[in-house]
Amino acid sequence: MRNIKLTLEYDGTNYNGWQAQKHNPDTIQEKIENALTIINKKPVKIYGASRTDAGVHALGQTASVMLDVLIPVENIPLALNSLLPDDIVCKKAELMDMDFHARYDAKGKKYRYRIYNDLIPSVFSSRYVYYYKRKLNLSLMGEAALHLTGTKDFSAFRAAGCTAVNTVKTINSIEIIEKKPEVWIEITGSGFLYNMVRIIVGTLIEVSTGKIKIEDLDNIIRSGDRRLAGYTVPARGLTLVEVYYN
Amino acid sequence: MRNIKLTLEYDGTNYNGWQAQKHNPDTIQEKIENALTIINKKPVKIYGASRTDAGVHALGQTASVMLDVLIPVENIPLALNSLLPDDIVCKKAELMDMDFHARYDAKGKKYRYRIYNDLIPSVFSSRYVYYYKRKLNLSLMGEAALHLTGTKDFSAFRAAGCTAVNTVKTINSIEIIEKKPEVWIEITGSGFLYNMVRIIVGTLIEVSTGKIKIEDLDNIIRSGDRRLAGYTVPARGLTLVEVYYN
Repeated sequence: MRNIKLTLEYDGTNYNGWQAQKHNPDTIQEKIENALTIINKKPVKIYGASRTDAGVHALGQTASVMLDVLIPVENIPLALNSLLPDDIVCKKAELMDMDFHARYDAKGKKYRYRIYNDLIPSVFSSRYVYYYKRKLNLSLMGEAALHLTGTKDFSAFRAAGCTAVNTVKTINSIEIIEKKPEVWIEITGSGFLYNMVRIIVGTLIEVSTGKIKIEDLDNIIRSGDRRLAGYTVPARGLTLVEVYYN
Repeated sequence: MRNIKLTLEYDGTNYNGWQAQKHNPDTIQEKIENALTIINKKPVKIYGASRTDAGVHALGQTASVMLDVLIPVENIPLALNSLLPDDIVCKKAELMDMDFHARYDAKGKKYRYRIYNDLIPSVFSSRYVYYYKRKLNLSLMGEAALHLTGTKDFSAFRAAGCTAVNTVKTINSIEIIEKKPEVWIEITGSGFLYNMVRIIVGTLIEVSTGKIKIEDLDNIIRSGDRRLAGYTVPARGLTLVEVYYN
Protein backbone atom coordinates (compact mmCIF):
# COMPACT_ATOMS: atom_id res chain seq x y z
CA MET A 1 0.00 0.00 0.00
CA ARG A 2 1.29 3.46 -0.90
CA ASN A 3 -0.04 6.89 0.06
CA ILE A 4 -0.24 9.16 -3.01
CA LYS A 5 -0.80 12.90 -3.22
CA LEU A 6 -2.57 14.05 -6.39
CA THR A 7 -2.58 17.61 -7.77
CA LEU A 8 -5.74 18.23 -9.76
CA GLU A 9 -7.11 20.82 -12.17
CA TYR A 10 -10.79 21.00 -13.06
CA ASP A 11 -13.48 23.08 -14.68
CA GLY A 12 -16.30 22.85 -12.13
CA THR A 13 -19.03 24.10 -14.48
CA ASN A 14 -20.65 20.73 -15.08
CA TYR A 15 -20.30 19.28 -11.56
CA ASN A 16 -22.13 19.41 -8.27
CA GLY A 17 -18.93 20.30 -6.50
CA TRP A 18 -16.12 18.17 -5.13
CA GLN A 19 -17.78 16.05 -2.49
CA ALA A 20 -19.35 12.68 -3.37
CA GLN A 21 -23.09 12.58 -2.67
CA LYS A 22 -25.26 9.53 -2.23
CA HIS A 23 -27.85 10.22 -4.89
CA ASN A 24 -25.78 12.35 -7.23
CA PRO A 25 -22.99 10.85 -9.34
CA ASP A 26 -21.89 14.18 -10.88
CA THR A 27 -19.23 15.15 -8.39
CA ILE A 28 -15.53 15.56 -9.03
CA GLN A 29 -14.58 13.25 -6.17
CA GLU A 30 -16.71 10.45 -7.62
CA LYS A 31 -15.27 10.84 -11.14
CA ILE A 32 -11.72 10.59 -9.78
CA GLU A 33 -12.54 7.70 -7.42
CA ASN A 34 -14.13 5.79 -10.32
CA ALA A 35 -11.05 6.27 -12.49
CA LEU A 36 -8.66 5.35 -9.65
CA THR A 37 -10.71 2.25 -8.85
CA ILE A 38 -10.14 1.01 -12.41
CA ILE A 39 -6.39 1.62 -12.08
CA ASN A 40 -6.23 0.13 -8.56
CA LYS A 41 -8.54 -2.79 -9.41
CA LYS A 42 -10.12 -2.27 -5.96
CA PRO A 43 -12.37 0.53 -4.64
CA VAL A 44 -10.49 3.56 -3.29
CA LYS A 45 -11.48 6.62 -1.33
CA ILE A 46 -9.81 9.99 -1.89
CA TYR A 47 -9.57 12.94 0.50
CA GLY A 48 -9.56 16.38 -1.10
CA ALA A 49 -7.97 19.38 0.59
CA SER A 50 -10.96 21.58 -0.24
CA ARG A 51 -14.59 20.58 -0.72
CA THR A 52 -15.13 23.04 -3.56
CA ASP A 53 -18.76 23.99 -4.24
CA ALA A 54 -20.81 23.33 -7.34
CA GLY A 55 -19.42 25.43 -10.22
CA VAL A 56 -16.13 26.26 -8.49
CA HIS A 57 -12.92 25.47 -10.42
CA ALA A 58 -9.44 24.35 -9.40
CA LEU A 59 -5.95 24.92 -10.74
CA GLY A 60 -4.28 23.15 -7.83
CA GLN A 61 -6.65 21.06 -5.73
CA THR A 62 -4.83 18.31 -3.83
CA ALA A 63 -6.10 14.94 -2.69
CA SER A 64 -4.59 11.91 -0.96
CA VAL A 65 -5.34 8.29 -1.73
CA MET A 66 -4.06 4.87 -0.66
CA LEU A 67 -3.24 2.64 -3.64
CA ASP A 68 -2.47 -1.08 -3.75
CA VAL A 69 -1.51 -1.26 -7.42
CA LEU A 70 2.21 -1.14 -8.23
CA ILE A 71 2.10 1.32 -11.15
CA PRO A 72 5.10 3.77 -11.07
CA VAL A 73 4.01 7.02 -9.41
CA GLU A 74 5.07 9.16 -12.39
CA ASN A 75 2.71 7.18 -14.65
CA ILE A 76 -0.38 7.83 -12.53
CA PRO A 77 -1.30 11.21 -14.14
CA LEU A 78 -1.30 9.80 -17.71
CA ALA A 79 -3.21 6.68 -16.66
CA LEU A 80 -5.76 8.76 -14.75
CA ASN A 81 -6.18 11.34 -17.52
CA SER A 82 -6.95 8.62 -20.05
CA LEU A 83 -9.91 7.62 -17.86
CA LEU A 84 -11.11 11.04 -16.65
CA PRO A 85 -13.53 13.33 -18.52
CA ASP A 86 -11.94 16.28 -20.41
CA ASP A 87 -12.76 18.79 -17.68
CA ILE A 88 -10.78 17.04 -14.92
CA VAL A 89 -7.00 16.61 -15.18
CA CYS A 90 -4.42 15.12 -12.82
CA LYS A 91 -1.29 17.27 -13.13
CA LYS A 92 0.99 15.48 -10.69
CA ALA A 93 1.25 12.42 -8.42
CA GLU A 94 3.72 12.18 -5.52
CA LEU A 95 4.61 9.40 -3.09
CA MET A 96 4.03 10.57 0.51
CA ASP A 97 4.63 9.26 4.03
CA MET A 98 1.87 6.94 5.17
CA ASP A 99 0.48 9.51 7.64
CA PHE A 100 0.02 12.33 5.08
CA HIS A 101 -3.58 13.54 4.70
CA ALA A 102 -4.38 16.14 2.00
CA ARG A 103 -7.05 17.90 4.08
CA TYR A 104 -5.74 17.71 7.67
CA ASP A 105 -2.14 18.52 6.77
CA ALA A 106 -3.01 21.56 4.61
CA LYS A 107 -1.55 24.73 6.17
CA GLY A 108 -3.30 27.19 3.90
CA LYS A 109 -5.06 27.78 0.61
CA LYS A 110 -5.09 30.40 -2.07
CA TYR A 111 -8.28 31.23 -3.96
CA ARG A 112 -8.71 33.52 -6.97
CA TYR A 113 -11.97 35.26 -7.81
CA ARG A 114 -12.21 36.62 -11.38
CA ILE A 115 -14.52 39.54 -12.14
CA TYR A 116 -15.03 40.54 -15.79
CA ASN A 117 -15.50 44.28 -15.35
CA ASP A 118 -16.64 45.54 -18.72
CA LEU A 119 -19.83 46.42 -20.60
CA ILE A 120 -19.29 43.68 -23.19
CA PRO A 121 -18.70 40.18 -21.84
CA SER A 122 -16.17 37.72 -23.29
CA VAL A 123 -17.53 34.38 -24.49
CA PHE A 124 -14.21 32.63 -23.94
CA SER A 125 -13.99 33.29 -20.22
CA SER A 126 -17.71 33.30 -19.38
CA ARG A 127 -17.50 29.97 -17.54
CA TYR A 128 -14.73 31.26 -15.27
CA VAL A 129 -15.67 34.86 -14.45
CA TYR A 130 -18.40 36.87 -12.80
CA TYR A 131 -19.56 39.42 -15.35
CA TYR A 132 -19.97 42.78 -13.59
CA LYS A 133 -20.66 45.87 -15.71
CA ARG A 134 -20.29 48.79 -13.29
CA LYS A 135 -16.71 50.12 -13.06
CA LEU A 136 -15.08 48.90 -9.84
CA ASN A 137 -13.10 51.22 -7.57
CA LEU A 138 -9.96 49.14 -6.98
CA SER A 139 -8.26 51.49 -4.53
CA LEU A 140 -11.37 51.54 -2.31
CA MET A 141 -11.56 47.75 -2.50
CA GLY A 142 -7.85 47.47 -1.61
CA GLU A 143 -8.36 49.68 1.43
CA ALA A 144 -11.38 47.62 2.52
CA ALA A 145 -9.41 44.40 2.07
CA LEU A 146 -7.00 45.47 4.83
CA HIS A 147 -9.90 45.42 7.33
CA LEU A 148 -10.66 41.81 6.42
CA THR A 149 -7.05 40.60 6.75
CA GLY A 150 -5.70 39.00 9.90
CA THR A 151 -7.01 36.54 12.51
CA LYS A 152 -10.69 37.22 13.17
CA ASP A 153 -14.02 35.61 13.90
CA PHE A 154 -15.55 35.49 10.41
CA SER A 155 -19.10 34.49 11.51
CA ALA A 156 -20.57 37.40 9.52
CA PHE A 157 -18.91 35.97 6.40
CA ARG A 158 -20.32 32.46 6.29
CA ALA A 159 -23.35 30.97 4.61
CA ALA A 160 -26.42 30.13 6.70
CA GLY A 161 -25.78 26.38 6.25
CA CYS A 162 -22.24 26.51 7.68
CA THR A 163 -21.91 24.34 10.80
CA ALA A 164 -18.20 24.92 11.54
CA VAL A 165 -17.58 25.13 15.31
CA ASN A 166 -14.43 27.23 15.02
CA THR A 167 -15.27 30.45 13.17
CA VAL A 168 -11.91 32.14 13.86
CA LYS A 169 -9.78 32.06 10.72
CA THR A 170 -6.60 33.77 9.55
CA ILE A 171 -6.58 35.62 6.25
CA ASN A 172 -2.96 36.23 5.30
CA SER A 173 -3.61 38.46 2.32
CA ILE A 174 -6.28 39.81 0.01
CA GLU A 175 -4.81 41.14 -3.22
CA ILE A 176 -6.77 43.19 -5.75
CA ILE A 177 -5.09 42.67 -9.12
CA GLU A 178 -5.99 44.59 -12.27
CA LYS A 179 -5.94 42.32 -15.35
CA LYS A 180 -7.90 44.51 -17.76
CA PRO A 181 -10.75 44.00 -18.44
CA GLU A 182 -10.72 41.62 -15.49
CA VAL A 183 -10.20 42.23 -11.78
CA TRP A 184 -8.75 39.32 -9.83
CA ILE A 185 -9.16 39.07 -6.07
CA GLU A 186 -6.65 36.62 -4.61
CA ILE A 187 -7.21 35.49 -1.03
CA THR A 188 -4.73 33.42 0.94
CA GLY A 189 -5.62 32.05 4.34
CA SER A 190 -5.27 29.21 6.82
CA GLY A 191 -8.84 28.07 6.37
CA PHE A 192 -12.20 29.27 5.16
CA LEU A 193 -15.82 28.99 6.30
CA TYR A 194 -18.58 27.93 3.93
CA ASN A 195 -18.91 30.60 1.16
CA MET A 196 -16.47 32.88 3.01
CA VAL A 197 -14.40 33.81 -0.07
CA ARG A 198 -17.51 34.60 -2.10
CA ILE A 199 -18.99 36.74 0.69
CA ILE A 200 -15.70 38.63 1.12
CA VAL A 201 -15.70 39.39 -2.61
CA GLY A 202 -19.36 40.48 -2.50
CA THR A 203 -18.52 42.75 0.43
CA LEU A 204 -15.60 44.34 -1.45
CA ILE A 205 -17.90 44.97 -4.43
CA GLU A 206 -20.47 46.63 -2.14
CA VAL A 207 -17.70 48.82 -0.73
CA SER A 208 -16.91 49.85 -4.30
CA THR A 209 -20.54 50.75 -5.02
CA GLY A 210 -20.85 52.62 -1.71
CA LYS A 211 -23.50 50.32 -0.27
CA ILE A 212 -21.09 49.31 2.51
CA LYS A 213 -18.85 51.96 4.11
CA ILE A 214 -15.22 51.14 4.91
CA GLU A 215 -15.64 52.61 8.40
CA ASP A 216 -18.41 50.07 9.12
CA LEU A 217 -16.35 46.99 8.22
CA ASP A 218 -14.86 46.44 11.70
CA ASN A 219 -18.35 46.61 13.23
CA ILE A 220 -19.72 44.19 10.64
CA ILE A 221 -17.01 41.69 11.60
CA ARG A 222 -17.67 42.21 15.34
CA SER A 223 -21.45 41.82 14.88
CA GLY A 224 -21.11 38.29 13.50
CA ASP A 225 -24.29 39.09 11.57
CA ARG A 226 -24.33 37.62 8.06
CA ARG A 227 -26.98 40.14 6.95
CA LEU A 228 -24.59 43.07 7.40
CA ALA A 229 -21.86 41.69 5.11
CA GLY A 230 -22.08 41.78 1.31
CA TYR A 231 -23.86 39.41 -1.04
CA THR A 232 -22.50 36.02 -2.13
CA VAL A 233 -21.00 36.34 -5.61
CA PRO A 234 -21.58 33.44 -8.06
CA ALA A 235 -19.51 30.26 -7.87
CA ARG A 236 -18.34 30.41 -11.50
CA GLY A 237 -15.78 33.17 -10.79
CA LEU A 238 -14.00 31.17 -8.07
CA THR A 239 -10.89 29.02 -8.53
CA LEU A 240 -8.88 27.15 -5.90
CA VAL A 241 -5.34 28.06 -6.99
CA GLU A 242 -3.08 26.26 -4.55
CA VAL A 243 -3.00 24.29 -1.31
CA TYR A 244 0.01 24.85 0.95
CA TYR A 245 1.78 22.23 3.09
CA ASN A 246 4.82 22.43 5.36
CA MET B 1 -33.63 51.32 -43.61
CA ARG B 2 -30.01 51.29 -42.39
CA ASN B 3 -27.13 48.97 -43.26
CA ILE B 4 -25.33 47.85 -40.09
CA LYS B 5 -21.99 46.05 -39.71
CA LEU B 6 -21.76 43.83 -36.63
CA THR B 7 -18.54 42.55 -35.04
CA LEU B 8 -19.16 39.26 -33.27
CA GLU B 9 -17.38 36.96 -30.84
CA TYR B 10 -18.49 33.40 -30.22
CA ASP B 11 -17.57 30.07 -28.70
CA GLY B 12 -18.51 27.65 -31.47
CA THR B 13 -18.41 24.52 -29.29
CA ASN B 14 -22.17 24.09 -29.02
CA TYR B 15 -23.13 25.11 -32.58
CA ASN B 16 -23.33 23.53 -35.98
CA GLY B 17 -21.31 26.34 -37.44
CA TRP B 18 -22.26 29.78 -38.72
CA GLN B 19 -24.58 29.08 -41.60
CA ALA B 20 -28.34 28.67 -41.06
CA GLN B 21 -29.60 25.23 -42.05
CA LYS B 22 -33.16 24.24 -42.84
CA HIS B 23 -33.59 21.43 -40.33
CA ASN B 24 -31.10 22.54 -37.73
CA PRO B 25 -31.77 25.53 -35.49
CA ASP B 26 -28.39 25.38 -33.68
CA THR B 27 -26.40 27.67 -35.90
CA ILE B 28 -24.84 30.98 -34.94
CA GLN B 29 -26.46 32.82 -37.84
CA GLU B 30 -29.90 31.68 -36.73
CA LYS B 31 -29.37 32.69 -33.09
CA ILE B 32 -28.32 36.19 -34.18
CA GLU B 33 -31.11 36.52 -36.75
CA ASN B 34 -33.67 35.50 -34.12
CA ALA B 35 -32.38 38.11 -31.68
CA LEU B 36 -32.22 40.82 -34.38
CA THR B 37 -35.76 39.98 -35.52
CA ILE B 38 -37.02 40.72 -32.00
CA ILE B 39 -35.20 44.08 -31.99
CA ASN B 40 -36.25 44.92 -35.57
CA LYS B 41 -39.84 43.67 -35.08
CA LYS B 42 -39.58 42.21 -38.61
CA PRO B 43 -37.58 39.24 -39.95
CA VAL B 44 -34.00 40.06 -40.94
CA LYS B 45 -31.27 38.21 -42.81
CA ILE B 46 -27.61 38.63 -41.92
CA TYR B 47 -24.56 38.01 -44.09
CA GLY B 48 -21.44 36.78 -42.29
CA ALA B 49 -17.96 37.36 -43.69
CA SER B 50 -16.94 33.77 -42.96
CA ARG B 51 -19.11 30.66 -42.85
CA THR B 52 -17.22 29.17 -39.92
CA ASP B 53 -17.57 25.40 -39.47
CA ALA B 54 -19.12 23.51 -36.58
CA GLY B 55 -16.95 23.95 -33.49
CA VAL B 56 -14.93 26.88 -34.89
CA HIS B 57 -14.77 30.04 -32.76
CA ALA B 58 -14.59 33.75 -33.56
CA LEU B 59 -13.02 36.77 -31.91
CA GLY B 60 -13.91 39.12 -34.78
CA GLN B 61 -16.45 37.68 -37.18
CA THR B 62 -18.30 40.41 -39.08
CA ALA B 63 -21.79 40.43 -40.54
CA SER B 64 -24.00 42.95 -42.32
CA VAL B 65 -27.72 43.41 -41.82
CA MET B 66 -30.42 45.82 -42.99
CA LEU B 67 -32.50 47.17 -40.09
CA ASP B 68 -35.77 49.14 -40.13
CA VAL B 69 -35.91 49.88 -36.41
CA LEU B 70 -34.63 53.30 -35.29
CA ILE B 71 -32.60 52.23 -32.25
CA PRO B 72 -29.30 54.22 -31.95
CA VAL B 73 -26.46 52.19 -33.50
CA GLU B 74 -24.36 52.32 -30.33
CA ASN B 75 -27.18 50.62 -28.38
CA ILE B 76 -27.39 47.61 -30.70
CA PRO B 77 -24.66 45.53 -28.96
CA LEU B 78 -26.27 45.80 -25.51
CA ALA B 79 -29.76 45.11 -26.89
CA LEU B 80 -28.49 42.12 -28.87
CA ASN B 81 -26.41 40.71 -25.99
CA SER B 82 -29.45 40.76 -23.69
CA LEU B 83 -31.18 38.42 -26.17
CA LEU B 84 -28.26 36.22 -27.27
CA PRO B 85 -27.05 33.07 -25.46
CA ASP B 86 -23.92 33.47 -23.28
CA ASP B 87 -21.60 32.02 -25.91
CA ILE B 88 -22.36 34.62 -28.60
CA VAL B 89 -21.55 38.31 -28.06
CA CYS B 90 -21.91 41.37 -30.29
CA LYS B 91 -18.87 43.57 -29.61
CA LYS B 92 -19.59 46.46 -31.97
CA ALA B 93 -22.20 47.85 -34.38
CA GLU B 94 -21.38 50.41 -37.08
CA LEU B 95 -23.48 52.32 -39.60
CA MET B 96 -22.30 51.59 -43.16
CA ASP B 97 -23.05 52.79 -46.71
CA MET B 98 -26.05 51.02 -48.20
CA ASP B 99 -23.88 49.00 -50.60
CA PHE B 100 -21.59 47.49 -47.93
CA HIS B 101 -21.66 43.68 -47.76
CA ALA B 102 -19.71 41.90 -44.99
CA ARG B 103 -18.76 38.92 -47.18
CA TYR B 104 -18.21 40.40 -50.65
CA ASP B 105 -16.33 43.48 -49.40
CA ALA B 106 -13.95 41.52 -47.16
CA LYS B 107 -10.36 41.93 -48.41
CA GLY B 108 -8.81 39.33 -46.13
CA LYS B 109 -9.11 37.31 -42.96
CA LYS B 110 -6.87 36.23 -40.14
CA TYR B 111 -7.29 32.84 -38.47
CA ARG B 112 -5.54 31.50 -35.38
CA TYR B 113 -5.03 27.81 -34.70
CA ARG B 114 -4.14 26.93 -31.09
CA ILE B 115 -2.22 23.74 -30.35
CA TYR B 116 -1.75 22.71 -26.72
CA ASN B 117 1.66 21.07 -26.97
CA ASP B 118 2.18 19.37 -23.62
CA LEU B 119 1.80 15.97 -21.96
CA ILE B 120 -0.81 17.23 -19.52
CA PRO B 121 -3.81 19.06 -21.02
CA SER B 122 -5.42 22.16 -19.50
CA VAL B 123 -9.09 21.91 -18.61
CA PHE B 124 -9.61 25.67 -19.00
CA SER B 125 -8.61 25.86 -22.64
CA SER B 126 -9.75 22.40 -23.77
CA ARG B 127 -12.66 23.83 -25.78
CA TYR B 128 -10.33 26.12 -27.73
CA VAL B 129 -7.20 24.08 -28.42
CA TYR B 130 -6.06 20.93 -30.16
CA TYR B 131 -4.26 18.86 -27.57
CA TYR B 132 -1.09 17.44 -29.16
CA LYS B 133 1.42 15.65 -26.90
CA ARG B 134 4.48 15.16 -29.11
CA LYS B 135 6.93 18.10 -28.98
CA LEU B 136 6.59 20.23 -32.13
CA ASN B 137 9.61 21.43 -34.09
CA LEU B 138 8.73 25.11 -34.54
CA SER B 139 11.71 26.07 -36.71
CA LEU B 140 10.92 23.25 -39.15
CA MET B 141 7.28 24.34 -39.22
CA GLY B 142 8.31 27.95 -39.81
CA GLU B 143 10.48 26.93 -42.75
CA ALA B 144 7.64 24.83 -44.20
CA ALA B 145 5.22 27.73 -43.78
CA LEU B 146 7.25 29.79 -46.28
CA HIS B 147 6.45 27.22 -49.00
CA LEU B 148 2.74 27.67 -48.35
CA THR B 149 2.82 31.46 -48.46
CA GLY B 150 2.03 33.46 -51.60
CA THR B 151 -0.51 33.20 -54.43
CA LYS B 152 -1.03 29.55 -55.36
CA ASP B 153 -3.59 27.00 -56.44
CA PHE B 154 -4.49 25.39 -53.10
CA SER B 155 -6.51 22.45 -54.54
CA ALA B 156 -4.42 19.99 -52.51
CA PHE B 157 -5.49 21.85 -49.36
CA ARG B 158 -9.26 21.70 -49.55
CA ALA B 159 -11.82 19.25 -48.21
CA ALA B 160 -13.44 16.77 -50.58
CA GLY B 161 -16.78 18.59 -50.31
CA CYS B 162 -15.38 21.96 -51.44
CA THR B 163 -17.06 23.18 -54.62
CA ALA B 164 -15.23 26.50 -55.06
CA VAL B 165 -14.52 27.22 -58.73
CA ASN B 166 -11.52 29.46 -58.08
CA THR B 167 -8.91 27.51 -56.13
CA VAL B 168 -6.17 30.14 -56.44
CA LYS B 169 -5.79 32.00 -53.15
CA THR B 170 -3.23 34.35 -51.63
CA ILE B 171 -1.76 33.55 -48.22
CA ASN B 172 -0.06 36.71 -46.95
CA SER B 173 1.57 35.19 -43.91
CA ILE B 174 1.76 32.09 -41.74
CA GLU B 175 3.25 32.83 -38.34
CA ILE B 176 4.30 30.16 -35.86
CA ILE B 177 4.09 31.72 -32.40
CA GLU B 178 5.32 30.06 -29.22
CA LYS B 179 2.96 30.69 -26.29
CA LYS B 180 4.17 28.00 -23.91
CA PRO B 181 2.70 25.43 -23.49
CA GLU B 182 0.70 26.43 -26.57
CA VAL B 183 1.77 26.93 -30.18
CA TRP B 184 -0.33 29.36 -32.20
CA ILE B 185 -0.38 29.28 -35.97
CA GLU B 186 -1.74 32.54 -37.37
CA ILE B 187 -2.68 32.59 -41.04
CA THR B 188 -3.66 35.74 -42.92
CA GLY B 189 -4.96 35.55 -46.47
CA SER B 190 -7.31 36.96 -49.08
CA GLY B 191 -9.61 33.97 -48.95
CA PHE B 192 -9.68 30.34 -47.96
CA LEU B 193 -11.02 27.10 -49.42
CA TYR B 194 -13.13 24.72 -47.33
CA ASN B 195 -10.96 23.36 -44.44
CA MET B 196 -7.85 24.99 -45.96
CA VAL B 197 -6.55 26.45 -42.68
CA ARG B 198 -7.02 23.15 -40.86
CA ILE B 199 -5.26 21.20 -43.64
CA ILE B 200 -2.35 23.69 -43.68
CA VAL B 201 -1.94 23.23 -39.93
CA GLY B 202 -2.12 19.43 -40.26
CA THR B 203 0.53 19.63 -42.99
CA LEU B 204 2.83 21.73 -40.78
CA ILE B 205 2.43 19.18 -37.96
CA GLU B 206 3.32 16.35 -40.35
CA VAL B 207 6.42 18.29 -41.40
CA SER B 208 7.35 18.50 -37.71
CA THR B 209 6.93 14.73 -37.25
CA GLY B 210 8.88 14.01 -40.46
CA LYS B 211 5.95 12.36 -42.24
CA ILE B 212 6.03 15.14 -44.87
CA LYS B 213 9.39 16.43 -46.13
CA ILE B 214 9.87 20.17 -46.68
CA GLU B 215 11.43 19.49 -50.09
CA ASP B 216 8.19 17.77 -51.20
CA LEU B 217 5.87 20.68 -50.33
CA ASP B 218 6.14 22.46 -53.69
CA ASN B 219 5.28 19.21 -55.49
CA ILE B 220 2.33 18.58 -53.16
CA ILE B 221 0.95 22.02 -54.03
CA ARG B 222 1.55 21.46 -57.77
CA SER B 223 -0.11 18.01 -57.65
CA GLY B 224 -3.43 19.43 -56.47
CA ASP B 225 -3.89 16.06 -54.75
CA ARG B 226 -5.59 16.30 -51.36
CA ARG B 227 -4.18 12.91 -50.32
CA LEU B 228 -0.60 14.21 -50.40
CA ALA B 229 -1.19 17.10 -47.98
CA GLY B 230 -1.48 16.64 -44.21
CA TYR B 231 -4.51 15.65 -42.15
CA THR B 232 -7.33 17.98 -41.15
CA VAL B 233 -6.81 19.09 -37.54
CA PRO B 234 -9.94 19.37 -35.32
CA ALA B 235 -12.24 22.41 -35.52
CA ARG B 236 -12.01 23.24 -31.81
CA GLY B 237 -8.51 24.77 -32.15
CA LEU B 238 -9.58 27.26 -34.84
CA THR B 239 -10.61 30.88 -34.27
CA LEU B 240 -11.49 33.55 -36.84
CA VAL B 241 -9.55 36.49 -35.39
CA GLU B 242 -10.30 39.38 -37.75
CA VAL B 243 -11.87 40.30 -41.09
CA TYR B 244 -10.15 43.05 -43.07
CA TYR B 245 -11.86 45.72 -45.21
CA ASN B 246 -10.49 48.64 -47.21
